[in-house]
Amino acid sequence: MDQRPSGELSALLTDLYQLTMAACYFDQNMQEEATFSLFIRKYPAQRNYFVAAGLSEVLEYLETLRFTDDDLAYLSSTGLFPTRLLDFLRGLRFTGAVQALPEGSIFFADEPILEVSAPIIEAQLVETFIINAISFQTMIATKASRSVRAAAGRPLVDFSLRRTQGRDAGLKVARASYLAGFLGTSNVLAGKLYGIPIFGTMAHSYITSFPHEIDAFRVFARNFPTITTLLIDTYDNISGVRHAVTVAKEMEARGQRLEFVRLDSGDMAAISQEVRRILDDQGLGYVRILASGNFDEYKIARVLADGARIDAFAVGTKMGVSADAPYFDIAYKLVRYADQPLMKLSTGKVTLVDKKQVWRCFDPQGAMARDTIALRSEAIPGGTPLLQPVMAKGRIIQPLPTND
Amino acid sequence: MDQRPSGELSALLTDLYQLTMAACYFDQNMQEEATFSLFIRKYPAQRNYFVAAGLSEVLEYLETLRFTDDDLAYLSSTGLFPTRLLDFLRGLRFTGAVQALPEGSIFFADEPILEVSAPIIEAQLVETFIINAISFQTMIATKASRSVRAAAGRPLVDFSLRRTQGRDAGLKVARASYLAGFLGTSNVLAGKLYGIPIFGTMAHSYITSFPHEIDAFRVFARNFPTITTLLIDTYDNISGVRHAVTVAKEMEARGQRLEFVRLDSGDMAAISQEVRRILDDQGLGYVRILASGNFDEYKIARVLADGARIDAFAVGTKMGVSADAPYFDIAYKLVRYADQPLMKLSTGKVTLVDKKQVWRCFDPQGAMARDTIALRSEAIPGGTPLLQPVMAKGRIIQPLPTND
Repeated sequence: MDQRPSGELSALLTDLYQLTMAACYFDQNMQEEATFSLFIRKYPAQRNYFVAAGLSEVLEYLETLRFTDDDLAYLSSTGLFPTRLLDFLRGLRFTGAVQALPEGSIFFADEPILEVSAPIIEAQLVETFIINAISFQTMIATKASRSVRAAAGRPLVDFSLRRTQGRDAGLKVARASYLAGFLGTSNVLAGKLYGIPIFGTMAHSYITSFPHEIDAFRVFARNFPTITTLLIDTYDNISGVRHAVTVAKEMEARGQRLEFVRLDSGDMAAISQEVRRILDDQGLGYVRILASGNFDEYKIARVLADGARIDAFAVGTKMGVSADAPYFDIAYKLVRYADQPLMKLSTGKVTLVDKKQVWRCFDPQGAMARDTIALRSEAIPGGTPLLQPVMAKGRIIQPLPTND
Repeated sequence: MDQRPSGELSALLTDLYQLTMAACYFDQNMQEEATFSLFIRKYPAQRNYFVAAGLSEVLEYLETLRFTDDDLAYLSSTGLFPTRLLDFLRGLRFTGAVQALPEGSIFFADEPILEVSAPIIEAQLVETFIINAISFQTMIATKASRSVRAAAGRPLVDFSLRRTQGRDAGLKVARASYLAGFLGTSNVLAGKLYGIPIFGTMAHSYITSFPHEIDAFRVFARNFPTITTLLIDTYDNISGVRHAVTVAKEMEARGQRLEFVRLDSGDMAAISQEVRRILDDQGLGYVRILASGNFDEYKIARVLADGARIDAFAVGTKMGVSADAPYFDIAYKLVRYADQPLMKLSTGKVTLVDKKQVWRCFDPQGAMARDTIALRSEAIPGGTPLLQPVMAKGRIIQPLPTND
């Protein structure tokens, strides 16, 4: 999978307060090293683990961070910033170090996902982007991972693009769900940019634009004989599957095989059983059943428990926006500045101080037994350190560690 | 507000099935006009109206739609598409007509937001992008509008960037919330791209990076005397506001005025009352109180009902992902093809046929009385038509209608 995300990574994609704080630090000549730690404070409902994602985009952003002349002209136009600060920003590059969990890592609440150590202006300025990238992509990878587990070995495909929260989200969902074990995506641009396998079927509008359903099926099978999936619920699933049977037999006569029929509405357990029976009665045991329509880990588990005969799931909206937990309580906290460990004491929000490492211990069977959050200077006997150096002096350490 | 969104509008940002269907239509020489209608099927919990947004991005996408050589090389590499289709796609432009609600319009479930009429390949191909853009931005504008109403005249600022679902979402949330009545955003890039006013304060890390809170306050006030907002909860709100009072008096001596103190945690009603009392006792009645921390329409209404003395709200995560309704049940349905009205009959999903218009009737006081969904060829006496022509023959009709 290509590690490069698409699109503009602007230095201005940040909160204004990052720049006002930078101005104050610059004014005070505060240039000492700060360490910020990124962690998720607590589990959303129904979550008990997380899957790390988003690091690749963060590192590309850090390595290429710069203010363009156009950016500086805009900042100047606000009248808020002195020229000497703008001159400083013109030359600013990210020169710090990053330790992080490899993408795809399983981790838990309160464990640092990523720690940035850099001159405080640099380390602070990148907060907004880092939180945005890691939080969202980790949220989607986590939701997708839960769907993969619920499907118990059946393949899943991401169909979420039309309902993701914007264009960038559509790409990131395709990538994060693939990272979490999905087979591929309907998102063609994600296929191109990330090398993810792409999948597609047909819409109800395609069926209704033909005089008869079977005509629509026949034309599709003729044009795409190696990837034919027929959507059978436009008028009625049972008449639809009978038309699909006719087309499957026509394909057989041409030496081709219908790959899937697709269900998209109704009682999935009952319909899939009936469709399976009809296909099997016609000697079409090789034709598989794909189901779509509001699937997530809960609905997948429910229809399988109800006895659904479904071989693959298209998972869309609810995974693509992490509908039951559409944001995470994630924080990027200053834990050390100028060689002093630091903490914040706001009501109910206590932060662990200083640079840290997470050590994972496994039981004799190789299963995760426990994690220990330690100071980075400590070592936990028998444990494996999870945070790895991924950037030094502002440059990505190649090759990036993987979780394979 | 500049109407141009940022970033790449790739023709490949679509579902694969749009391309497989296009291939079938092309193979069958199906080139007649299709009309698709975009509407929201039902209200999410707690919603009873919608605010339209996203049209500007849709129209830019339609006007500039084309497959690049790079796109076509990727499609060719999949092995799915014949060369004559790729040649057709190379020359494809969107040549159709669009009728739509102006951005900022109030509308209701089942009412068409937008109708596209174009040769069926074009009208189908753009489905994914149109649904994505209109659905997400309308969802955010609706959530933001609800927050504006709850705040009853108090200004709101978008602080959501770090928790939006990706980069594009951060920009769109800033724009959609501004459209819905927010005063501005913390998102600097949105300020640059859309001309939205930008706002910023300081982070807890800024406070803790100084030996004493009051030092951090003093440096900020010296550097940004016209926009000083002091965050007072890092250690304790009451000692924090006392430090803010000291700095405010120092600013007065320099002929400056502290603008805001900011609360970010704790019991907002009780703390804001105490902070208000302390400020007033010190003759600082002009210093206003900004509150942040998990605000949305529900929390705004609750703290105001509890007697909070809050003058402005920073609204972040929950608005920025529309947390209680993070997707809408929106559909883009084929309602007419080749001069025939069409409908789909899947279980529980009935679509109104043919090209439509929405007529709004007002009562004698000028309040909305009722809407009527009619065929486009009908006229409703006494009503005002809401859908307006915004694109003809693939070109944006200038100037776009506004809802001002």
